[in-house]
Amino acid sequence: MLSSIDVKLVYGVAEPTHFCLHLQVADHADQHVREERLQVQPPLPLHDYRDAVKGNRFVRFDAPKGLVHVQYQAEVEVHYEIPAPGLGEAPVNQIPDEVLHFLSPTRYCESDLLGNAAQQLFCKAAPGLERVQAVSDWIHDNIAYTPGSSDATTTAQQIFVQRQGVCRDFAHLGVTFCRALNIPARLVAGYVFFDEPPQDFHAVFEAWLDGRWVLFDPTRMAPVERLVRVGTGRDAKDVAFATLFGKASLVSKDITVRESVGQPAAAAQGAARQPQLRAVG
Amino acid sequence: MLSSIDVKLVYGVAEPTHFCLHLQVADHADQHVREERLQVQPPLPLHDYRDAVKGNRFVRFDAPKGLVHVQYQAEVEVHYEIPAPGLGEAPVNQIPDEVLHFLSPTRYCESDLLGNAAQQLFCKAAPGLERVQAVSDWIHDNIAYTPGSSDATTTAQQIFVQRQGVCRDFAHLGVTFCRALNIPARLVAGYVFFDEPPQDFHAVFEAWLDGRWVLFDPTRMAPVERLVRVGTGRDAKDVAFATLFGKASLVSKDITVRESVGQPAAAAQGAARQPQLRAVG
Amino acid sequence: MLSSIDVKLVYGVAEPTHFCLHLQVADHADQHVREERLQVQPPLPLHDYRDAVKGNRFVRFDAPKGLVHVQYQAEVEVHYEIPAPGLGEAPVNQIPDEVLHFLSPTRYCESDLLGNAAQQLFCKAAPGLERVQAVSDWIHDNIAYTPGSSDATTTAQQIFVQRQGVCRDFAHLGVTFCRALNIPARLVAGYVFFDEPPQDFHAVFEAWLDGRWVLFDPTRMAPVERLVRVGTGRDAKDVAFATLFGKASLVSKDITVRESVGQPAAAAQGAARQPQLRAVG
Amino acid sequence: MLSSIDVKLVYGVAEPTHFCLHLQVADHADQHVREERLQVQPPLPLHDYRDAVKGNRFVRFDAPKGLVHVQYQAEVEVHYEIPAPGLGEAPVNQIPDEVLHFLSPTRYCESDLLGNAAQQLFCKAAPGLERVQAVSDWIHDNIAYTPGSSDATTTAQQIFVQRQGVCRDFAHLGVTFCRALNIPARLVAGYVFFDEPPQDFHAVFEAWLDGRWVLFDPTRMAPVERLVRVGTGRDAKDVAFATLFGKASLVSKDITVRESVGQPAAAAQGAARQPQLRAVG
Repeated sequence: MLSSIDVKLVYGVAEPTHFCLHLQVADHADQHVREERLQVQPPLPLHDYRDAVKGNRFVRFDAPKGLVHVQYQAEVEVHYEIPAPGLGEAPVNQIPDEVLHFLSPTRYCESDLLGNAAQQLFCKAAPGLERVQAVSDWIHDNIAYTPGSSDATTTAQQIFVQRQGVCRDFAHLGVTFCRALNIPARLVAGYVFFDEPPQDFHAVFEAWLDGRWVLFDPTRMAPVERLVRVGTGRDAKDVAFATLFGKASLVSKDITVRESVGQPAAAAQGAARQPQLRAVG
Repeated sequence: MLSSIDVKLVYGVAEPTHFCLHLQVADHADQHVREERLQVQPPLPLHDYRDAVKGNRFVRFDAPKGLVHVQYQAEVEVHYEIPAPGLGEAPVNQIPDEVLHFLSPTRYCESDLLGNAAQQLFCKAAPGLERVQAVSDWIHDNIAYTPGSSDATTTAQQIFVQRQGVCRDFAHLGVTFCRALNIPARLVAGYVFFDEPPQDFHAVFEAWLDGRWVLFDPTRMAPVERLVRVGTGRDAKDVAFATLFGKASLVSKDITVRESVGQPAAAAQGAARQPQLRAVG
Repeated sequence: MLSSIDVKLVYGVAEPTHFCLHLQVADHADQHVREERLQVQPPLPLHDYRDAVKGNRFVRFDAPKGLVHVQYQAEVEVHYEIPAPGLGEAPVNQIPDEVLHFLSPTRYCESDLLGNAAQQLFCKAAPGLERVQAVSDWIHDNIAYTPGSSDATTTAQQIFVQRQGVCRDFAHLGVTFCRALNIPARLVAGYVFFDEPPQDFHAVFEAWLDGRWVLFDPTRMAPVERLVRVGTGRDAKDVAFATLFGKASLVSKDITVRESVGQPAAAAQGAARQPQLRAVG
Repeated sequence: MLSSIDVKLVYGVAEPTHFCLHLQVADHADQHVREERLQVQPPLPLHDYRDAVKGNRFVRFDAPKGLVHVQYQAEVEVHYEIPAPGLGEAPVNQIPDEVLHFLSPTRYCESDLLGNAAQQLFCKAAPGLERVQAVSDWIHDNIAYTPGSSDATTTAQQIFVQRQGVCRDFAHLGVTFCRALNIPARLVAGYVFFDEPPQDFHAVFEAWLDGRWVLFDPTRMAPVERLVRVGTGRDAKDVAFATLFGKASLVSKDITVRESVGQPAAAAQGAARQPQLRAVG
C-alpha cells in the first residue's frame, strides 16, 4: 500500500508562541518513506527531534505574531503484517522489561479504575488476539461515534460512562481495557483514508501479543493495515499533533490522504502522483 | 409480618455536638408502629421533627462532651403489597407534579451522566415492572457486594465504573438508572433481618410505576416486603441515620432485627417479645 | 423597583415532547406580580403547577412535531430588604427543621468534598453576613466569567478546580462553600437587567443568616435587590427554565428585562409600558 | 552524608504471583552505593532490570504460594548539590527535547486541568527557584498531612480539592502545578530519615530549572539533600516500590534509615555500621 499525505495547517499567532509539531510519519519498521517535505511559512528556523525509542518525530520552532502556514507532504509505503488468528497472550512474567510499563495507567487511561469492569466483560474471551478483538468489538458496539461529545481532557473512564466519543476516545478505552487485563497497550496516531467523517488525524491502539504489537481500530473507520503511523505513545498526550506554548489557535486544518495498492515501485510512484483509487480532500 | 427492632448506638463526643438522628420508623401507610421507645443517655432535651411530606422523622439534640448512648426499640407491623406482574410505566406526561422531581439527578445519583448507558442496557426490557426488575437484576449480577470498597462520598457513577459497593451504592445505582430511563426513583432506608453480613441499616430503592411506589433490593439480602421503612429521600443524604455537627464519633453500633410472621395481633405481640423464628444480635 | 420581563423562546420539536417550563415569576413575599401572560403557539392544553413550599411555578404541556413558540411577559414589583451589616449566623442547633436540609450536598454542590477548602479560605472571616460576603467576593476574584467553559453537568468542585464558569457555576460554588461552613444555602434563578453579557436567565445564591434568606451574586452583574425571582431550589436542577422529555431543541431565546424605579403605582405602570431608564433586547 | 538502609517486606502469596520490585537505589550521579544486598526467601530466580535513561532498577521474580520475605540493605553516599538562590527558569523553547515530555499531564497529575489555578496562585512569584519554592510552600501550608485520607488512585486534582493527603500526594500536586506553569517536573521516590510519622518510603518532586533538576519536599519531613533516590518517574506509577501480578498482599513492612554525616570514608563506614546519630526502626 502506498499512501500520499498532504496536511495543511494554518495558525493564528496572537503572541510569540513555541510550536512543537508532530506531523511527520514515524521511523518504524512497518513503513518506508519515499519522499516527504515539511514547509513552514514564514520561513523559521526549525529544530528536528527524533525519539530513538519510539520513532516519533517532532519539529519545534518559535513563531512570531501573525499567520503561520504549515504544510506536510509525504509518500509512504506501509507493510503491516496482519497477525495470524489465534495469536496468544504473553503471561506477565514473559513481558519484556521495556514493555512492562505499557501496563500502567496514564492520564487518559485509568486502567487502575476499570479493572473489575474489564474482567467482567472480557474474562470469558479466549486469551490473546481473540480477547483484544473482543475489547475492540465491545467498544465499537457500545460507544457511539459522536463528534463534539468529548474534548482534550476526556478520559477513558468518562467514555465508559457516557458511551460516546471520537477515535481518540475509542482508542483510549481500548488501551485501558487491555492494560486492566494485563495486556500491554498503547496509542497510535496516524493518517489513513476514510470515506467519512471528514478526513482528519486518526487514532487507534495496539496491544502487545505474544512478542509483537498488533493494531486495532474500534471505530472500524479504516483497515489498520493501511494506517501510516505518525506517533506511538502511552496515550494521546504523547502523540498530540501540535503542542503550543503561547497564544495561538488553529485557523484551518486540511488533510488529504490518497491510497494506491501494490504496484511495482515505478508504477506505484506514478500512481502516487495521480492516484486513481480513492481520494478525499 | 411483625418486626422487632433494637438499635444501640454509642457516641464519643469530644466537643459539644449537635445531633440529628434519623432512626425512628417512618410515618407510612405500609406500616403500623405498635410500640416504640427512643432513649438518650445522659438525658437531654430532645426535639422531634416529622417531615409531613415524606413521613421521615428526626430527633435533634445538643450533646455535651462525653459518651452518649442512644437506644431505639420498636415493634412494627409491615403490610407491603407486592405488585402484580406486568405493572406498567407511566409516560412522563402522566407523572404527577410532585413526583416529577424524582427524575432529577442528585449528589450520589448522576442520572444525567448515565443516560446512554441506561438506554443501552435496558432499552430492550419491557416497560414497567419488568424494566426496573432488569435494572435491579443487572446491578445484582454486575456489582460485587464488597464492604469497604466505597465511602460516604461514593456516587453511582463511581459504582458503575468500579463494579463494587455496598447496599447504599446498589440502591443509588438503581435510582440512577431509573431516573435516566425517565422512571421516578428514590432511596429508602430501613431495617430488615438478614443472615449476613452482620445486621446493619439497610438501603434499597423504589421506583414509581403506574401510580405507586415499588420497592427493589438489588443486593437480594432480604425480601423487600419485610423492610421496615425509616426514611425516604432523593438519595442517601436525605436519609442518613445520623448527621453530626461538632466533634463526635460512633464508638459502637448494635442493631438487632427480629421478625415473626402473621399471627393474630395478640399472639404476635407475644411473639414479638419472645420471637422464635430468626434472630440476629 | 418595577421590572418588565419579556421572554421569547422557540423550540424545534422533532418528535412529540413533554415540556416542563419554569419561566413564571415565583410566588414570593418579596415580589408582587402586577400582570403577566404566558402564551404557547400552537395553542396547547397547559397544566399549571405551583410548588406550595418553594413558590416555584411550572407549566407542563405536550408538544407535537413542529415549531413551538413560547412567550412570557410580566410586570413585577420587587421589594427586597437589604440586610443590615453585621447580620449574624445561626448556630446549627437553631436552624429550623425545614431549613436544615439546605446544608446537604446536591448534584452540583459537593459540599461534602469542599469542607477543608471552605474552612481554610473562610475560617478567619467574621461569622454571618461578613463570612458569606467573603465567600461571594472570593468567587468573584478567583473564578473567571467565561461563557462556554462549563456545561449542564459541571459541578462546583470542577469550577473550584478549573477557575472559570458562568453565573450558574458561580452560584453553585457559593452554595457549596456555605453548606460546607454549616450555613444553609440554595440557588435562586431569576430575571435581572444587566449591560453585558447579552441578557439571559440569571442565577445567584442565597444563604440563611439569622432567621432570613439573604441574596448574593458573586458575578456582580447586577444588584441582587433587583432580581425578579423565578425559582428557588437546592441547585440548578430544581430551577431549570426548561426540562424536555422527548426530542426537541431550543432554536432561539430572546430575553428582555426593563427596570424603572419606585414611582407611585399609576406612574410606574406607565413607566413599565414605556421604560426610560435602561433597556436591553 | 552516608545513609544506611534496611527494608524488610513480607508478602503472603495466595496464588502464584509475578513480582516487580523497585527497592534498590537508583543509578544516579548524585549518589554512590558503597554496598548493597537484596535477598528473597525462599530463594527464587531473580531477574534484574536497569532503565538506562532514568536509572531506575527493578527486580522481577515469580513467587509460589506461601510467604515471601524480601530484605534490601544498602549503604549509600549522597552528594546532592543545593542550588544557589535565584536559579532561573528555562523558557519553553530552551527546554531540551528529552525533557519536554515532563510537561505533560499523567495519571495522577492533571496539569491540564489545574492551569488556571496554578497561574492564579503563582503568577506573582519570581520565575525559577523562587516560584517552585512558592509552589512547595503553598502545598505545605494548605494541604494537611493526613495518613489514610488518600489511596493508590488519588490524583492531584482530588488533593487540591480535599486539601489533605500524604507525601505521594504532596509531590503529585507539586509536579502538577509546575507542569501547569510550563516547568518540567517529575516524581522522585526514595529513602530518607525522619522522626515521624513512622519511617516509610518517601516521595518528593523535582523541577527542571535552568539546566538541572532541583528537589523539593512540600511535606518538609526531611531535608531533600539527604534523600537516597530509588526512582524517578512521571508520577507514582513509574516508581511504585512493588507491582504485583497475581494474588498476594503485604503482610509486614519494616524500613530503617540511619544517617551519619561527612566523615572520611573509613570512619563513615564504621559509623554506618554503628550509627550514633539518629535512628528509627
